[in-house]
Amino acid sequence: MAVYTDVAADELAEFLNQYDLGDLLSYKGIAEGVENSNFLLHTSKGSFILTLYEKRVERNDLPFFLALMTHLAEHGINCPLPVKGRDGEALRELAGRPVAIITFLEGVWPRKPNAMHCAGVGEVLAKMHLAGANFAIRRVNALSVSGWRPLFDQAAARADDVQPGLRAFLAAELGHLESGVWPTNLPEGVIHADLFNDNVFFLGDQLSGIIDFTFACNDMLAYDIAICLNAWCFEADHSFNVTKARAFLNAYGRVRKLTEAEEASLPLLARGAAIRFLLTRLVDWLNVPPGALVKPKDPLEYVRKLRFHQSVSSVRDYGLMPSGLVA
Amino acid sequence: MAVYTDVAADELAEFLNQYDLGDLLSYKGIAEGVENSNFLLHTSKGSFILTLYEKRVERNDLPFFLALMTHLAEHGINCPLPVKGRDGEALRELAGRPVAIITFLEGVWPRKPNAMHCAGVGEVLAKMHLAGANFAIRRVNALSVSGWRPLFDQAAARADDVQPGLRAFLAAELGHLESGVWPTNLPEGVIHADLFNDNVFFLGDQLSGIIDFTFACNDMLAYDIAICLNAWCFEADHSFNVTKARAFLNAYGRVRKLTEAEEASLPLLARGAAIRFLLTRLVDWLNVPPGALVKPKDPLEYVRKLRFHQSVSSVRDYGLMPSGLVA
Repeated sequence: MAVYTDVAADELAEFLNQYDLGDLLSYKGIAEGVENSNFLLHTSKGSFILTLYEKRVERNDLPFFLALMTHLAEHGINCPLPVKGRDGEALRELAGRPVAIITFLEGVWPRKPNAMHCAGVGEVLAKMHLAGANFAIRRVNALSVSGWRPLFDQAAARADDVQPGLRAFLAAELGHLESGVWPTNLPEGVIHADLFNDNVFFLGDQLSGIIDFTFACNDMLAYDIAICLNAWCFEADHSFNVTKARAFLNAYGRVRKLTEAEEASLPLLARGAAIRFLLTRLVDWLNVPPGALVKPKDPLEYVRKLRFHQSVSSVRDYGLMPSGLVA
Repeated sequence: MAVYTDVAADELAEFLNQYDLGDLLSYKGIAEGVENSNFLLHTSKGSFILTLYEKRVERNDLPFFLALMTHLAEHGINCPLPVKGRDGEALRELAGRPVAIITFLEGVWPRKPNAMHCAGVGEVLAKMHLAGANFAIRRVNALSVSGWRPLFDQAAARADDVQPGLRAFLAAELGHLESGVWPTNLPEGVIHADLFNDNVFFLGDQLSGIIDFTFACNDMLAYDIAICLNAWCFEADHSFNVTKARAFLNAYGRVRKLTEAEEASLPLLARGAAIRFLLTRLVDWLNVPPGALVKPKDPLEYVRKLRFHQSVSSVRDYGLMPSGLVA
């Protein structure tokens, strides 16, 4: 939860004159989003989200995020649509920060996802991958295999304070993933890279949209699937729920069929996705600033997930019949 | 900013079945309110605030707050209206906590109040005092003069760590206020007792409503005025702005004329109001729990305000002509 930067009412009303959004009725800082300051606006034209991008977000990346949301929305994906000012620009400045307004997406994110939710996520992820195929701008994934060593180096010295033996465990896994096993020949495209349950909205049983593209980038599509396996298919006690995984993978496969090479790589990609979140959480855990407004997430959850993926021998263990056969 | 308790989507949807509020469209934890967890709900019937009352709020007080809002709304005050369930009850339970839904009030609170805002506050405060006159339920003010000594006792030992000499300064002031000077014969009624700028909403230049009655109680009406003098009429550098005070007091007086005794007591009441906020802030400042989500407010702001009120000799220093003459 976070509002790092407050905005004065008169300053905001003045700012809104640059848009065709009617009169400002109210704005509330909302306790979602860890990286940026977000406000829910009511204007006489409807509801919107105002985001002030804080320093952890690269300003150069913002045009990518905004253009991607516009592209996906225009290609049938329910996601927030950036609102352009009267001059045609969506990216502006307010309170000394880059800022954008996007449409507000109704829906609630599932605190306790079930297999139905997982199927919805599989379907929308595959549709997003197809919709992103002809998106022109590119953004490198800074948190793929080459990005993990620097995170490890930041955390290594104090890793065993979090859990005895964690440093050696991470070093061994990282050594393995860096040893040339990481795939390079899988289908690539735009991935969301952070499609956790708080980024997927439902209205009743129906998925109503996906949000938060601040980690989106170009990478292997199957890596996005691996991230979702980690994000959606474990229980609160960190046990793997194969029913959820099967629902997720089958729903994905009905929209975009996985190649055999993607299927074969999935256990390894899932290990990579697990260590990626393990490392970023560990760095955050070890670097909580005094007076932090955001409670860091437990990195050890991902130690257990990683151990599970290490034990997987094929996609059968994720509930998928190899070669894309629907179970 | 605070959301202490999260609510699962299915749990909330189920809970809403007890009301005639239509379908749940979305809910966002909002970063306002220090004591409780607040969510902005969108349903097919409109926008609402869901409050989960956390442990600092006395459960026995909740019927008072909810009945008061209903009473004031029915008597022409723009404030949130508690929404009753199908069984006629507004106070219910969710996630193990007492909870209520109130209507959402559009409007923005002024981050930098000017004299126009202060006049709006004066008018609405007087109207609220009149509207509360025939409200039947009573609630003692736990934070009046008899409530300050226990706060002082909690903070005294470490007060000088915050500012050298603070303990003696507080002891002397408290001794004076407890010496029999505190008035007992002024007009009483329902007071808001916390009408700071984040509790007053405006749409353009017009005051659109007042919120947050969790400190409301029965006490001298002029004590509410004294609180507002502290809350609205000082600049960011803690200097007193007599133009704002005059606008506030004159607007109040046009709706409800102050008695001579109230005018004469105002400097003393303002000292009391200053030490009340000084002491609660000091106790909070000295007792920030590790991992706190709320940054405590600076108690020393109220040392400077209190010194100002100590220097005041009559309401003339607040910009008011004695005997209620409009300046």
